[in-house]
Amino acid sequence: MSRAHFRSILVTGANRGIGLELVKQFLAQPKPPQWLFAACRDPHGGRAKELQALASTHPNVVILQLESTDEASIKTAAKEAEALLAGSGLTLLINNAAIMPPSTLESVTKEDMLSVYQTNLVGPMLTTKAFLPLLKTAAKKSPEKELSGSKAAIVNVSTIGSSIGDAPSMDMFPVVAYRCSKIALNMLTRCQALEYKESGILSVAIHPGWVKTELGTDKADLTVEDSTSGIITVLSNLSEEQNGRLLNWEGRYISW
Amino acid sequence: MSRAHFRSILVTGANRGIGLELVKQFLAQPKPPQWLFAACRDPHGGRAKELQALASTHPNVVILQLESTDEASIKTAAKEAEALLAGSGLTLLINNAAIMPPSTLESVTKEDMLSVYQTNLVGPMLTTKAFLPLLKTAAKKSPEKELSGSKAAIVNVSTIGSSIGDAPSMDMFPVVAYRCSKIALNMLTRCQALEYKESGILSVAIHPGWVKTELGTDKADLTVEDSTSGIITVLSNLSEEQNGRLLNWEGRYISW
Repeated sequence: MSRAHFRSILVTGANRGIGLELVKQFLAQPKPPQWLFAACRDPHGGRAKELQALASTHPNVVILQLESTDEASIKTAAKEAEALLAGSGLTLLINNAAIMPPSTLESVTKEDMLSVYQTNLVGPMLTTKAFLPLLKTAAKKSPEKELSGSKAAIVNVSTIGSSIGDAPSMDMFPVVAYRCSKIALNMLTRCQALEYKESGILSVAIHPGWVKTELGTDKADLTVEDSTSGIITVLSNLSEEQNGRLLNWEGRYISW
Repeated sequence: MSRAHFRSILVTGANRGIGLELVKQFLAQPKPPQWLFAACRDPHGGRAKELQALASTHPNVVILQLESTDEASIKTAAKEAEALLAGSGLTLLINNAAIMPPSTLESVTKEDMLSVYQTNLVGPMLTTKAFLPLLKTAAKKSPEKELSGSKAAIVNVSTIGSSIGDAPSMDMFPVVAYRCSKIALNMLTRCQALEYKESGILSVAIHPGWVKTELGTDKADLTVEDSTSGIITVLSNLSEEQNGRLLNWEGRYISW
């Protein structure tokens, strides 16, 4: 299992679930990142205690306040990261923060649709815009010639529920606002892939599987450890072939 | 060219472009609809003059005020239609109204993303919810057993630019907010197809081609007459096979 070295990483929604596990597993790598920015909405709140504990024992972990619906907080976070990175750029941006409130075609409201879209699509879009100069710097300074996860990459955490071809039924997955937002995130990923390739940045969407987290519930079939370990292996082996695609935690392509 | 009879039709964005041409061509059919509801934002404004002229000479044309971002106007329009339909239901709902402001990954803002999503995705969703009881009635009263456009159908006007597989490049089609909203509309169409099939309602997304309209500009390669005529032929020949799919104006499937 080859694992690339990611010099610097930002993970959003890093205080729980897959986000928190990504922080743990990146720290446990043979060569951990020099900087690991762990972004969450409320860094001082009770729901960020585990992350706080990690940061207190790992000087390379920096907790950033980032609320994906608040553009000012995203810009402030980018400035903080920029200062610490001191010209070296950001290698890996993982847009992981998302919400998934229940919504059927019958129950869904305009407000549901807009708030889910704002967190799950507009948030990643704004976060990527704010960190783009840092990603470009990383790509420029990297000795690697080809696109890869360790040169510079945008990783948008998506879902198989965003696939029209492979998606589960409405009964199985009654979250219409979430599905619409995540398929739009796949499109954003593809647009980013087309646009940022020339700057040496790879863009990919990842389906983490159905994972035992607060969002996935304990009925899920995959542990957060296994899903996250799979994702890191996938990120370690990214190449141009995967640019703009939707992959699962095992690296398999998912149809649109 | 077999053309089914659509007993009653609602077209949104009916004052110009493809919406207006749909009204004209439905009126010119051998057996025109009993009711043709032509919905637009501002029925009394200068931009609805051609539609007003049509309505003044065709008693089956009813202009409805419908602003897709305003749920109250949608509900009022549904009540007006319900009263005129007098228990017979609505055969065909064509969600055609949309906006396409220019937006690149660099220029796009949170406000662009949300306003385009609201008009292009939330509008059709709310319109469908409001007219769903009338569509269900039409399906129930229809003598046809299989799904079809003349039994009861939801038609969401989409775009090839919403396809991830077949989409044009960012340079060719620099409208990221529009692309994200329309791919979400494809997902909504698929969810509607899965959910409403049991009520006898067919759901489909249509790519009208690149059409010489205000939205498509005069550089487009297809006249509004040819695109619209193609769409009506497609709608006349819909069956369960097309339920939940994205088709172009010639009836060809477009990949997601």
